[in-house]
Amino acid sequence: MTDPMRILLVGAGGVGSAFAAIAARRDFFEAVVVADYDPARAEKAAAQDGRYVAAQVDASSVESVTALCREHRITHVMNAVDPVFNMPVFEGAFAAGADYLDMAMSLSTPHPEAPYEKTGVKLGDHQFEAAPAWGEAGRLALVGIGVEPGLSDVFARYAADHLFSEIDELGTRDGANLVVTDDDGNEIFAPSFSMWTTIEECLNPPVIWQDGEWHTTEPFSEPEVFDFPEGIGPVECVNVEHEEVLLMPRWVDCKRATFKYGLGDEFIGILKVLHTLGLDRTEKVRVKAASGGHCEVSPRDVVAAVLPDPATVGPRMKGKTCAGLWVTGTGKDGEGNPTGPRSTYLYHVVDNEWSMQEYGHQCVVWQTAINPVVALELLATGTWSGTGVLGPEAFDAVPFLELLTAYGSPWGIKELDA
Amino acid sequence: MTDPMRILLVGAGGVGSAFAAIAARRDFFEAVVVADYDPARAEKAAAQDGRYVAAQVDASSVESVTALCREHRITHVMNAVDPVFNMPVFEGAFAAGADYLDMAMSLSTPHPEAPYEKTGVKLGDHQFEAAPAWGEAGRLALVGIGVEPGLSDVFARYAADHLFSEIDELGTRDGANLVVTDDDGNEIFAPSFSMWTTIEECLNPPVIWQDGEWHTTEPFSEPEVFDFPEGIGPVECVNVEHEEVLLMPRWVDCKRATFKYGLGDEFIGILKVLHTLGLDRTEKVRVKAASGGHCEVSPRDVVAAVLPDPATVGPRMKGKTCAGLWVTGTGKDGEGNPTGPRSTYLYHVVDNEWSMQEYGHQCVVWQTAINPVVALELLATGTWSGTGVLGPEAFDAVPFLELLTAYGSPWGIKELDA
Repeated sequence: MTDPMRILLVGAGGVGSAFAAIAARRDFFEAVVVADYDPARAEKAAAQDGRYVAAQVDASSVESVTALCREHRITHVMNAVDPVFNMPVFEGAFAAGADYLDMAMSLSTPHPEAPYEKTGVKLGDHQFEAAPAWGEAGRLALVGIGVEPGLSDVFARYAADHLFSEIDELGTRDGANLVVTDDDGNEIFAPSFSMWTTIEECLNPPVIWQDGEWHTTEPFSEPEVFDFPEGIGPVECVNVEHEEVLLMPRWVDCKRATFKYGLGDEFIGILKVLHTLGLDRTEKVRVKAASGGHCEVSPRDVVAAVLPDPATVGPRMKGKTCAGLWVTGTGKDGEGNPTGPRSTYLYHVVDNEWSMQEYGHQCVVWQTAINPVVALELLATGTWSGTGVLGPEAFDAVPFLELLTAYGSPWGIKELDA
Repeated sequence: MTDPMRILLVGAGGVGSAFAAIAARRDFFEAVVVADYDPARAEKAAAQDGRYVAAQVDASSVESVTALCREHRITHVMNAVDPVFNMPVFEGAFAAGADYLDMAMSLSTPHPEAPYEKTGVKLGDHQFEAAPAWGEAGRLALVGIGVEPGLSDVFARYAADHLFSEIDELGTRDGANLVVTDDDGNEIFAPSFSMWTTIEECLNPPVIWQDGEWHTTEPFSEPEVFDFPEGIGPVECVNVEHEEVLLMPRWVDCKRATFKYGLGDEFIGILKVLHTLGLDRTEKVRVKAASGGHCEVSPRDVVAAVLPDPATVGPRMKGKTCAGLWVTGTGKDGEGNPTGPRSTYLYHVVDNEWSMQEYGHQCVVWQTAINPVVALELLATGTWSGTGVLGPEAFDAVPFLELLTAYGSPWGIKELDA
């Protein structure tokens, strides 16, 4: 029997707040410290459960994270801040002897000479470098355990163990038919996820695993219309840099791994324009300030600042979001013998009206947040265990998918023409 | 004989500097005071001619403009700053008893209830309200005497006086085939004119004169491909709010007046995205500052700040820009008798390589700046005279067009299928 689980939730934004709302209905933990840079946000998310306390944290400071862990005898650090803060939170947890979970991995750096052909520093590289130390310390960092990465990686493991004798491609495909309206009912542009992170993902060179190695391409490459289930329908998808491509091949044999994001025409157009103008840049520019004089700001921060906060768009949003994995290769029967060519989409759909009514959180952040709650429950009960820096595909998929269904959010499977 | 002309040039940006370079070759004036908020910019533009002196000015302050006029015994204020400063410069000139010229009129305010149907405060309204006072004082404000407005308005007067017995439409049409490349020779997005002003023009409700009154439409309305002369070729043009539509009908009979800007597909797409995201807004937003803490900045200022300064793109730009007026109606013969239906494009083309080599200024700002120099020379010699607030079409077009040609920059005329 392990010690009672005491969780430090770092970040009480959209995903962190939804995590708190989902975990509040479960009894596998003793305490959650809800920490944010903004104490008011932490207080608000912590108010919903007697086992929750609020705290202030500076996620850019290893020391701040470590101190909070020690103060509250934290066993698991749940990182729910922007991935730009991944390394200090990851290192802060390690220094305090806590286990660690996140939903996005440490950031990449493009290859200096051939950014659209070769990888430079890859997503998660900084974290995987620390894997021996985590292993020696007997501690677990479970990285990329949101929905994508996260549930998609669980699907990869499930497909390899139960559906396929040989896998050609593990193709994560993500799409939605969400629409946000303003107070007058007019459709407006309002991303359902952090615009900062969306820009980071979409304008970095997309990474692809092919025949034993990773390479990169131009942003928005290899457009493809994927027909999403449960009424979402066809959406234009393009290659995007994403953790699954870096995680899946480490534990699951496959010839190819890709991530295509169903951004749709309009969003792709918007991201291309932001890039053309340089408004995606994080390097500061000098601008006139309201207070007089000038100040230096990051154009990408300004883009995020003019858009509605994704945490607030839920009540004005309609539609469904789908996360899933399209697997192609050779199927297998119940005895593990190869059958014929197989093409299967494993997926998870959340209807925004349902998640808003049931949890008060919009579907995209809710769908991200449920997976680490499920994972923590599996770790708390000892169903999942491990040490080192591991992806979700390093664990048995079946108990995860069963518990997800038990949470009231079942997954689906659809056979496609092989 | 009038007093020797002493000019206060307010603004030493792209257009102001080109004005100084063009005027330096002429002898119709005694002195130019080159004034800018940034003394270094003023010094630089003033350095090229012995009759020029540099000064510092706050164009947002009536008193600053008036004081500078009095100090230097200014006879004519040449306004070359962003039109947001039009009223203080206009009022500062009046208070000092100077004549005034500008290249864009006081700004509009959309109709509060029906912005895309009815006009609110129109371009130039604030200036025309002051017309009686200027008339009584015996002073002249010649408004909108750049290229567009400016030369286009001269064309309108020329068409009415010499080419048409009846005018159906005075349709200003502006297009270019300019391309800007970076140091590696890759094509980049770099507007050849102030991005702040371009956004203002393009996202304000376009105004149209039709059958005796003005109305507005949605931005980018009535797209039309116009075939520009001298190798520029077909460019997609859309309705844009512009001064010509407000000026021409005051002095030239016409059933309809329009302004369509050959923005091209890419630029239209970019402006639509900026509008969709709210990055065209001038209201401040709160953003993290590089220095720590937060500051409030205008998103539109940030957009302008990330783009190359239009004053610096000249050496990396290739192609031609065309400004002109498409007139349709009934032609007339030499005796003024009506002939048949007529469709004529009067135009002025500048090749960037020529303007860079000849003057060191890129073609768009050079083409804007030459017209007020020509106008000032006509005023200095007494060929043009008047009092009140007048547009270019209030004066005889012939001497203007002759002097423009004498400056080495001839205009053209092209008959179209009527």
